[in-house]
This record gives sequence, C-alpha cells and structure tokens, in this order.
Amino acid sequence: MSDPGSNYDIIIIGGGPAGLTAGLYTARAKLRSLLIERGAVGGQIVTSEWVENYPGVKDGISGIDLTQIMYEQATKFGLETVYADVSGISVEGRQKTVKTSEGDYTAPAVIIAGGSDRQKLGVPGEAEFTGKGVSFCATCDGAFFKEKTVAVVGGGNAALTEAIELTKFADKVYLIHRRDVFRGGKILEERANDTGKVEFLFNTVVDEVLGDKFVNGLKLRNKQSGETSTLKLDGVFMAVGFLPNTGYLKGTVDLDELNTVIVDAHMATSVPGIYAAGDIRSQSIRQVVGATGDGAIAAINAEKYIHG
Amino acid sequence: MSDPGSNYDIIIIGGGPAGLTAGLYTARAKLRSLLIERGAVGGQIVTSEWVENYPGVKDGISGIDLTQIMYEQATKFGLETVYADVSGISVEGRQKTVKTSEGDYTAPAVIIAGGSDRQKLGVPGEAEFTGKGVSFCATCDGAFFKEKTVAVVGGGNAALTEAIELTKFADKVYLIHRRDVFRGGKILEERANDTGKVEFLFNTVVDEVLGDKFVNGLKLRNKQSGETSTLKLDGVFMAVGFLPNTGYLKGTVDLDELNTVIVDAHMATSVPGIYAAGDIRSQSIRQVVGATGDGAIAAINAEKYIHG
Repeated sequence: MSDPGSNYDIIIIGGGPAGLTAGLYTARAKLRSLLIERGAVGGQIVTSEWVENYPGVKDGISGIDLTQIMYEQATKFGLETVYADVSGISVEGRQKTVKTSEGDYTAPAVIIAGGSDRQKLGVPGEAEFTGKGVSFCATCDGAFFKEKTVAVVGGGNAALTEAIELTKFADKVYLIHRRDVFRGGKILEERANDTGKVEFLFNTVVDEVLGDKFVNGLKLRNKQSGETSTLKLDGVFMAVGFLPNTGYLKGTVDLDELNTVIVDAHMATSVPGIYAAGDIRSQSIRQVVGATGDGAIAAINAEKYIHG
Repeated sequence: MSDPGSNYDIIIIGGGPAGLTAGLYTARAKLRSLLIERGAVGGQIVTSEWVENYPGVKDGISGIDLTQIMYEQATKFGLETVYADVSGISVEGRQKTVKTSEGDYTAPAVIIAGGSDRQKLGVPGEAEFTGKGVSFCATCDGAFFKEKTVAVVGGGNAALTEAIELTKFADKVYLIHRRDVFRGGKILEERANDTGKVEFLFNTVVDEVLGDKFVNGLKLRNKQSGETSTLKLDGVFMAVGFLPNTGYLKGTVDLDELNTVIVDAHMATSVPGIYAAGDIRSQSIRQVVGATGDGAIAAINAEKYIHG
C-alpha cells in the first residue's frame, strides 16, 4: 500500500487512539494520509482488559476491540498504514521527511502521536499480570477495586495522587516507596494520611508480583534490613513515571522537562506543520478520550496548514 | 433526585457530549456531581441523523443514540440531573452558586458546557429539513454528498472554507451570499474559484428551503433585481455563524470577541474553579470527539481544584 518517497499530504506517527483519530479525520477530509506504526496498532490502551470510561461505549469494551474499531473506521476512509520504526524527522521549508526503517516518507504536515511508555518496575510477574491486577492508571482502573486491598508503587506526586484516588474505592492502600521520604508535595502526603486508609511502606522495594490468574500479592524487601516479606493484596498500581517516545525528536521540536512535546491549543508544535497529539504531548490527561480529542484537533489544524 | 441548596462537589451546565463526558469522569471519581440541562440531554449532535466520525463507533450511530449512551454511562456512576434554565453564576471565595429556574445550587467547581447554537437563517423549510439535507457542518456531513449538488449560505471565512471542503465530495457547490463581496479572505475566495466547482451567487438571499422527504431545492431572490428563482440541489450548508450560550456569563468569566469562553490548556476559565468545555469554549473544533476530550480534561482538572 504505502510507497516510500511518494508524496503524502500528511504523515501520522503512532497508531494509538490519537493517531487513529487523526487518521480518521484527515482521510475523511480526502488528504492522502499515511500512518506509521512500529508494532501493532492500538497503543497503550490495548493492555487494558476493560475500558468503561470512554464515552459512547455503553457497557465497556476491551482496549484491543476499541482501537481495532478505530483502525477500521480510519482505513475505511482511505488511511494507509506502514509498519516501521521512525528514526527522525527532517524539515526543509514546508517539506517534512520522516525517516523510517522502511524508507523515507515526505509530506507538508506531520502529526506526532507516538505515545508514552509507562516506566516499568522490571520485576517478575509485572508483565504477566498487567491488566490482571497490575495497572498503570488509577483514574482508568480504580473503580474495579471496590472494597479491595491495593498498593501503589512510587514516590512522586503521581504516586501520592493515585493512592488518594484509590482510597475512594479500595478499603486499604499501601504506598510502597524505595526511599525514606517522598519526592511529592507535603500537602499530598498529609491528605493521603488523612484518609486513614493509606499505609506508607518506606525503604521498601518490590521483588516480584505474585498471582495465580490474577494478582494476589507482592514479594517485598526492606532495603535497610534486607528482610523479605509477602504482602497480600488484590491489585498494584505502578506509578514510577513515563517515557515519552520522543528520543528521535530532540533538536527537531521543542520538548518540555519531561521530554513530552510542547503544543499550543491547536496541538501545534514549535515547527509549523508539525503537530502532536495524545500522551506524547505536554500536559496530556493520559486518557483515551483525551487522545482522540487531541487527534481530531491536530488533524483539523493540520488540514488548515496544508491548504494554507 | 437533585436538591436545591444541597452541596455538590461539582455542577456541570449543559448535557451535550462535553457535559456528559465531564459528568462521567467526575461521577466515576466519586464527586457528587449535578448536571443542569435546560431541555433534553444530547446537545447539538442530536440533530445529526448519522455520525460516522466519532472514533470507536464502527458503522456510525445517530446523534441521539450516541448521546443517550453517554448519558446512561454517566448516570450509572452516579451523575444527578436537573432540568432547569441557568440565569447566572455567583462566586464567593471558593463557593460558586449557580442560579436556575429550579433554585440555586452550590459547589466549589463548575464546568460550563452549554454549547453554541448555530445561527439559523430563519426561513421556511430550514428547521423541517435539518438533518435531511440542511446541515450546519461540512466536516461532519460533507462525505454524505458525494457527486451531489450542494449550496453553502454565508459570506465569511467559514462559508468559503466549507465550500472548498465540499468540493472534495460534491460535483457542484453554490456559494450564496446576500452581499456583493465576501467578508472572508481573498486567498480563500481564489482557492474556491480554483476548484472549478464553486459558483458564486452574490446579492442573493434564500427565501425557502424546498423538499419532499429530503431537500431538493432552494427558493432564491436577487436583492438588487427582486427576481426570484428556484435552484435544484441535494443539500444546503448554513454557515452564517454561531451563538454561544454565554449570555448569563458576561461579567463572570472572560469571553472572547465571539462570546465564547476563554480557556487555557486545562479548560480553566479566568475564575479559579470554573472550567469550560465543548463548543462554548474558545477555539472549539465543533466536533463530538473534541467536546468529549474537553469534558474529560475539564473534569480531571476540576477534581484537582476541588481537592487542592
């Protein structure tokens, strides 16, 4: 389908909800549109077994099914797809060249929608139980843990916020931090304390996520005493950071201190004709519904740029 | 269900896709959430017979069905609804009071999601055939008019842009303007000309939209000669402006020159704790997927404000 060197109107990097929505809009606007995806389409949300906070999908849907529908919608209107790794974008006047493992593609407009990877702990059981009790998002999955016992792993504001969020559902929330002090704000720490449901485990690391079909515990180790223990629980939320897929963008578009792409309200980056959408952009809410909104905004403004 | 005077965590004004998504998120976050809707839930999109550019809804869906699903999702998580007209918002420190025809409601946070009304021409047949050949959005409905003859009514940049957009689908596009010169930019006028498909009808007004089950023509009148004529066509796009429902907000939050609510990237208005989402906010892309994204962003940031 896709033809290296041939001229597209727009190139979209990344096939998650942001990129697929951008592609739906640009293809439907009859722009010749190429989606570049490095693995399988769908993005991070495919790891979610069940999504019930995407508006318009009444009884919930799996992340895989939701994004498969988005992919079919976009291809129906003419979105082309190539599977390739992107290594860089070069800009010459209005022309942008996206360099990939399958060759170079050119277009006046590019939408960067390559997402962020969740930072993993890298312990046994973590990958196996992702979506089965291991989660990376309390806003997304907290409601599934009503009256349960859960843990949050991490020591920043995100970890504290997730712990507080989870007290609305869970009966007990352990906050596991490898250091003896939080990097997060004192107010958040006090608020977590005030819930009466959060227990702090300092100087503690997770050695393994335990489970059968579903998570049922964590193997912990105290970093000071070396003592190991098993903590029984129903779910664990990893809040140890994000890794935006922006390595190849340094020096091309402006990034913020978290290495996400700085955008304005039109999803425009620092380079005219290059847009960003979804979890790769600054201040993303990290929700499917945010990514789809971003993708449509980027597409509509890219179309204006192309015709401008 | 709703109880005037009782304290809510958050009040959402307007039950379209933006307000319903905001309500889904705030209710799911266990905030006591009240939706105030003046008519029926659903917003502008209920006038769309068929929506095929909302990501995740594979074969398309009617606007009514789509928003009904959103409403059921949000109420399932505890969103309360009251049907009332809003007449104002007063701010006293952190407390906001929303004054309505059913009494006053208070909360620390408010999301304004009351949408915009499309400016109507106000001619016979216009209301009757809305969604049946009369459309207010080329991006939404253009693809339904492949190889057809359509008209755009209006004289601003929006009308010119819609006409150019429609040439991708329609074989012939009439641009009907009551004056002899466009208010829109010269470049857009030239580009419309360059398509070879747009015919300008200056000094012309629409007296009536004609049709049977579906639009089949327009009754036109030349303002200079007074001559009347019938133009046969398959669809007509009204591009005569928008009326954001912000009359009661003047002096409360900052509005732009189009009377839409000025927001930042967090959907925050000029008043801390008051957010705006969807077509009522500045620079909206006027798409369901944009409104839902806005709603989620407003909700997540409002939650931070409430807990902050």
